[in-house]
Amino acid sequence: MKIHTGRSRNDQVVLDEKLFLKDALIDIITKILALQGNILKVAESKIDIVIPAYTHMQKAQPVLLSHYFLSFFKKFERDTDNLFFNFETCDYMPLGAAACAGSGYKLDRKLLKELLEFKDLDSNSMDIVGNRDFLIDFIYSCSKIMLHLSRLCEDLIIYNTSEFSFIEIDEDFCTGSSIMPQKKNPDVLELIRGKSSLVIGSLMQSMILLKGLPSTYSRDLQEDKKILLSAYKETSASIEIFSKLLEKIKINSIKINNALKEGFLEATDIADYLVKKGESFRKAHNIVGKIVRICIDKKISFKDLEMEELKNHSPYFESDLHDMVKIQSCISSKKVECGTEKGQVILNVESGKKKIKDSGNKLKDLIKRTPKFEKIIKYIDA
Amino acid sequence: MKIHTGRSRNDQVVLDEKLFLKDALIDIITKILALQGNILKVAESKIDIVIPAYTHMQKAQPVLLSHYFLSFFKKFERDTDNLFFNFETCDYMPLGAAACAGSGYKLDRKLLKELLEFKDLDSNSMDIVGNRDFLIDFIYSCSKIMLHLSRLCEDLIIYNTSEFSFIEIDEDFCTGSSIMPQKKNPDVLELIRGKSSLVIGSLMQSMILLKGLPSTYSRDLQEDKKILLSAYKETSASIEIFSKLLEKIKINSIKINNALKEGFLEATDIADYLVKKGESFRKAHNIVGKIVRICIDKKISFKDLEMEELKNHSPYFESDLHDMVKIQSCISSKKVECGTEKGQVILNVESGKKKIKDSGNKLKDLIKRTPKFEKIIKYIDA
Amino acid sequence: MKIHTGRSRNDQVVLDEKLFLKDALIDIITKILALQGNILKVAESKIDIVIPAYTHMQKAQPVLLSHYFLSFFKKFERDTDNLFFNFETCDYMPLGAAACAGSGYKLDRKLLKELLEFKDLDSNSMDIVGNRDFLIDFIYSCSKIMLHLSRLCEDLIIYNTSEFSFIEIDEDFCTGSSIMPQKKNPDVLELIRGKSSLVIGSLMQSMILLKGLPSTYSRDLQEDKKILLSAYKETSASIEIFSKLLEKIKINSIKINNALKEGFLEATDIADYLVKKGESFRKAHNIVGKIVRICIDKKISFKDLEMEELKNHSPYFESDLHDMVKIQSCISSKKVECGTEKGQVILNVESGKKKIKDSGNKLKDLIKRTPKFEKIIKYIDA
Amino acid sequence: MKIHTGRSRNDQVVLDEKLFLKDALIDIITKILALQGNILKVAESKIDIVIPAYTHMQKAQPVLLSHYFLSFFKKFERDTDNLFFNFETCDYMPLGAAACAGSGYKLDRKLLKELLEFKDLDSNSMDIVGNRDFLIDFIYSCSKIMLHLSRLCEDLIIYNTSEFSFIEIDEDFCTGSSIMPQKKNPDVLELIRGKSSLVIGSLMQSMILLKGLPSTYSRDLQEDKKILLSAYKETSASIEIFSKLLEKIKINSIKINNALKEGFLEATDIADYLVKKGESFRKAHNIVGKIVRICIDKKISFKDLEMEELKNHSPYFESDLHDMVKIQSCISSKKVECGTEKGQVILNVESGKKKIKDSGNKLKDLIKRTPKFEKIIKYIDA
Repeated sequence: MKIHTGRSRNDQVVLDEKLFLKDALIDIITKILALQGNILKVAESKIDIVIPAYTHMQKAQPVLLSHYFLSFFKKFERDTDNLFFNFETCDYMPLGAAACAGSGYKLDRKLLKELLEFKDLDSNSMDIVGNRDFLIDFIYSCSKIMLHLSRLCEDLIIYNTSEFSFIEIDEDFCTGSSIMPQKKNPDVLELIRGKSSLVIGSLMQSMILLKGLPSTYSRDLQEDKKILLSAYKETSASIEIFSKLLEKIKINSIKINNALKEGFLEATDIADYLVKKGESFRKAHNIVGKIVRICIDKKISFKDLEMEELKNHSPYFESDLHDMVKIQSCISSKKVECGTEKGQVILNVESGKKKIKDSGNKLKDLIKRTPKFEKIIKYIDA
Repeated sequence: MKIHTGRSRNDQVVLDEKLFLKDALIDIITKILALQGNILKVAESKIDIVIPAYTHMQKAQPVLLSHYFLSFFKKFERDTDNLFFNFETCDYMPLGAAACAGSGYKLDRKLLKELLEFKDLDSNSMDIVGNRDFLIDFIYSCSKIMLHLSRLCEDLIIYNTSEFSFIEIDEDFCTGSSIMPQKKNPDVLELIRGKSSLVIGSLMQSMILLKGLPSTYSRDLQEDKKILLSAYKETSASIEIFSKLLEKIKINSIKINNALKEGFLEATDIADYLVKKGESFRKAHNIVGKIVRICIDKKISFKDLEMEELKNHSPYFESDLHDMVKIQSCISSKKVECGTEKGQVILNVESGKKKIKDSGNKLKDLIKRTPKFEKIIKYIDA
Repeated sequence: MKIHTGRSRNDQVVLDEKLFLKDALIDIITKILALQGNILKVAESKIDIVIPAYTHMQKAQPVLLSHYFLSFFKKFERDTDNLFFNFETCDYMPLGAAACAGSGYKLDRKLLKELLEFKDLDSNSMDIVGNRDFLIDFIYSCSKIMLHLSRLCEDLIIYNTSEFSFIEIDEDFCTGSSIMPQKKNPDVLELIRGKSSLVIGSLMQSMILLKGLPSTYSRDLQEDKKILLSAYKETSASIEIFSKLLEKIKINSIKINNALKEGFLEATDIADYLVKKGESFRKAHNIVGKIVRICIDKKISFKDLEMEELKNHSPYFESDLHDMVKIQSCISSKKVECGTEKGQVILNVESGKKKIKDSGNKLKDLIKRTPKFEKIIKYIDA
Repeated sequence: MKIHTGRSRNDQVVLDEKLFLKDALIDIITKILALQGNILKVAESKIDIVIPAYTHMQKAQPVLLSHYFLSFFKKFERDTDNLFFNFETCDYMPLGAAACAGSGYKLDRKLLKELLEFKDLDSNSMDIVGNRDFLIDFIYSCSKIMLHLSRLCEDLIIYNTSEFSFIEIDEDFCTGSSIMPQKKNPDVLELIRGKSSLVIGSLMQSMILLKGLPSTYSRDLQEDKKILLSAYKETSASIEIFSKLLEKIKINSIKINNALKEGFLEATDIADYLVKKGESFRKAHNIVGKIVRICIDKKISFKDLEMEELKNHSPYFESDLHDMVKIQSCISSKKVECGTEKGQVILNVESGKKKIKDSGNKLKDLIKRTPKFEKIIKYIDA
């Protein structure tokens, strides 16, 4: 069999794209797993740091910093699942479709499949030459990764303001102004956030390209390569540099501790306290609401209130209150499997490690599923 | 346990969306499978019809009409795979996340999971309340379906022109002008093609919504419901009506046969003939190119040429030529697994039937994985 | 002439859309001008408040709060210009195009134009029935407005955090949690930011709809109405509610003043001071950089440094330094026409007022350019 | 004054982008005007060719080919208007904004404005450094141009099929397969249609970049340059090559004439005939509908019907009918200003020429409004 007989540009370009894509998937998965590894390192090494969690950018409740970072581990875990799924979707050998009707030669497609290390044969020539689903799927996965990174960058940009000062980005990833060395512009975080726009836009480009296009091959499809390359390059670079930035991130415990003292972060837990003592859910909420308002007006914090005064609001308040609503107690009460209690978080770190290991093994398997030059070379000569 | 204790709007809205989504996925899969079934019916009942295949909207090679329709079966098959994958991604029980730190109550999340028929527990409260990946994934799958439909509609709109006249769309799916009853405007096909724009745009909306958004919950997320509903509604309606349209599609064999006579559809096969006889690939192509050009200039077709003349171009031409390059021979020579040869196409119809059956069984399993009112009711009363 | 003779759905739908659009443009311009008016009110009434300006979300230099708000006045001013331009682009009378070739009746298009108050006749029937440029242009202008609002909302959401606390959003535009009354979730700002995604997505929908569509009329175009209505409704509502929110915004001067004391906001002005005294630009920057770093290390602020020490860094430092680099001097030195010096800002407020007045007059003119029922009614009866 | 004093990267990058953009606008306008000129040449030289106009890809009515091409002249005319408007919006001198508060130096902004040939000064430093409206506006105009080209390409790709065969694309703009020289794949048209996806996607990228971004400068904005360059390059190349393709387009009159004989293109005109004779609009439509149906059933054309038979349908049919509904009469009856009657079309060609001339003069004025090296050089040395 001669390698160039019975081929057409139409099926060959699909082969090239699929081979490129399998490599790209392996590269992105490798980088995402490295990033996830770095997240776990931070989560593990900072397991005792408590930060305020925000909803609506307003202080809500205390959580472990590790819990916060694990919330992104989770997002990237879903991304990894997508990427593995993309590999499977992509892994059908297209050669033999020729221009569109199928090759008229007795091609040994199974041999080609073996040589090129595909899982299976693709099965309809007209579909094959006009299909770019595998490519769009990849760009979609890239877009999701970038969305996740953009949200993480947004958080960190805000935590890096002088007003928050929860974190410090290493100067390798910042640019200062020569004149204002106190200004640590988080350029890398901003660039990644910006690049998310590019990749989402690439997804749009790939879909608009195919919208309303006649099936089989039209030359419009040639433009897909630019789109793919840009999406891949921006995503790969973003994951890689973010991963490095994370390795060098500094946590400013003093500032975080100050932040925990303000904002009545224990309010929810006080209501929970009352409910557990016997108060109704609704009433407990109203009572705590009133008390917080009083504190705001008097510019005092919760623990400055006398028990006597509290008892006026609810007879369920007792002397064990202040122990129960210390920040640490707020943390330790969130024992549900998804909660921020330290034991749960450690479990999640451990299961995270296991997942990375499993994914690493799956990745090794994928690497085997790419063509080896030594194996093909003799057929090319033939 | 009271069903409303330890809840927050933030985790409840995720629950609601996931329950809605599981139903929506089941609905869309049901409709896609029905559509695939109708494609197989057409493919099976029209197995002997040959049409010209087009690339670049130019006649390329003869194929079976069934082969053409199966190329879309394949696209929808990938869509079905996506939808099943989406169901798995979505199938993690979110309750217990509360506002963002995890519930402080002793929630029996495993019981909730059983009652609500989730596969597993979702595992990080901060991720849970700000996660909309499952929703975007669904809209992405809808966009892909609509992309595929838009290409199919484009093909059929063109095949429905008076110039092509390969098909006739049933008048239930057309509007005529009262004054021009010969005009069969393929409105339904155009509307579906138009609606693909809406759904792709919905995907964009959902991604822009999340771009650069702080993690956990922000009220921006409220807008996701409009986006989801629109994408779901347009996709569901489009599949359903297209499926009905396909049931009533008429094939205009006379017009198609006329079309097969023009366009030198056998050119590739003549070159293949020469190669099989011993001519080199490149030379065979050049020879056929020259001959076709002569035919065009003389306004004759291939079979009008004398063997003597042909032999001037290549000694490999022999008396078996005309048998070999009849339209039917062009079809029967495409015996590769993805080719348009009748036996292969029938195999693909059969494997298509099997796939629908398997998917139908998987679907039944999904239906079981949605909550049953009878099972939950007692806990709501408690 | 009978009003319904010589019409086609194809040109009538364009007429309807154009008439709808002219009203929509008038509505949006009215609301934008009201919003701009409210911006000027804030700018005028708070003229003496100084805030830190941010770049990269890092404190950069002191500016007048009014200067900040005027930066958005400017963006909305460009939006208003766009909207007026859209009106002109839209203002060509389409009737007479009929289905696509032009009407065969002796239509008095000039009379129709007068009655329907169009500026001029549209001039090519085939263009008319397939043209939706006017509609896309409007949605584009809406998208730009929403982009501007999304950036303003982002700023205000951050300024509304407890960490910044520069502003307080009136509780009518927030939702609290009953349990955490200190939490002022800026829901309206978040919703507007979220809605910007919808409108940008609508723009995408309208463009994808037209991409690769055959010219003249196809039924795909029917989908344009949903897109238009959604974009219009979301934009109109967003401007209106934001305008009300702005009226009730509270500025927290104490917090802002504290913020001004940190961050070495005067650094640039100290460098400018040296340059004006004779130091080279580059050297001045280096010197100030060094000094700031010393202050950070010693945890002191600029004004705590002795003149003697300063003179070690540069002989150009003199006793007038501290007067020159007070926050107020930083402000008053920015005398360029686009700078934050008070006189300049007041000039910009005044020119803003004039622009609103001029635009108001132009708007009155537009209102005249919409059809009057009294004028048309007799022709409808005829 | 030294050219580099009182500058910041933040205002300089805006200056650079604006200068680049003014050149890009001039380039695109130049190319669009050249394209419009070529459209007029075709329209003028082919003034007597009649083609069937299509709606819904169904034959509707006969029109002049020139009328068809002028419908795109009109679209590009609106594009030109947009581009001129963009130039004005862009033409405000940004220098002096410095980092964000305005320069502290006594900059002579008016001199800078003169030297750099800006129309006026930009007026708010905080707006200036974070503003990219001018850039998005340009990409939007490019997207609109590409949308128009994509529709034109779609039309021509269909007219270039062997089934339509209305036109022939010069082989310089096609690729054939060596083996199928009869196959004229309209690659250039397909590539332009494909590139429209890229440019629309670039618009999306630029808008997503700014969505929810804090005002003033963030490093995200750095990504705008890639987006701008890609959109500009693809648009400029597409216009240029399309323009050349149009110059060499061949019209296949024989095929077109055959097409005119089918499809009852005169149906509307027969109804108009009856209305003009006195029949009601609705009734005339019904009558013609019935007659056309009869013709279809009998496989005859309109002119094969006897007058006697026609009179059975309506007494208004008279012997002048056949003259009135000849293709040429169908054309000549469309005398409304936007209709396809030859005189109107010639008027539109003439007014098109005038518009190109006027735009050419405006363009010369724009070219003057770009900086001249000779004028600036001495200030740079100073």
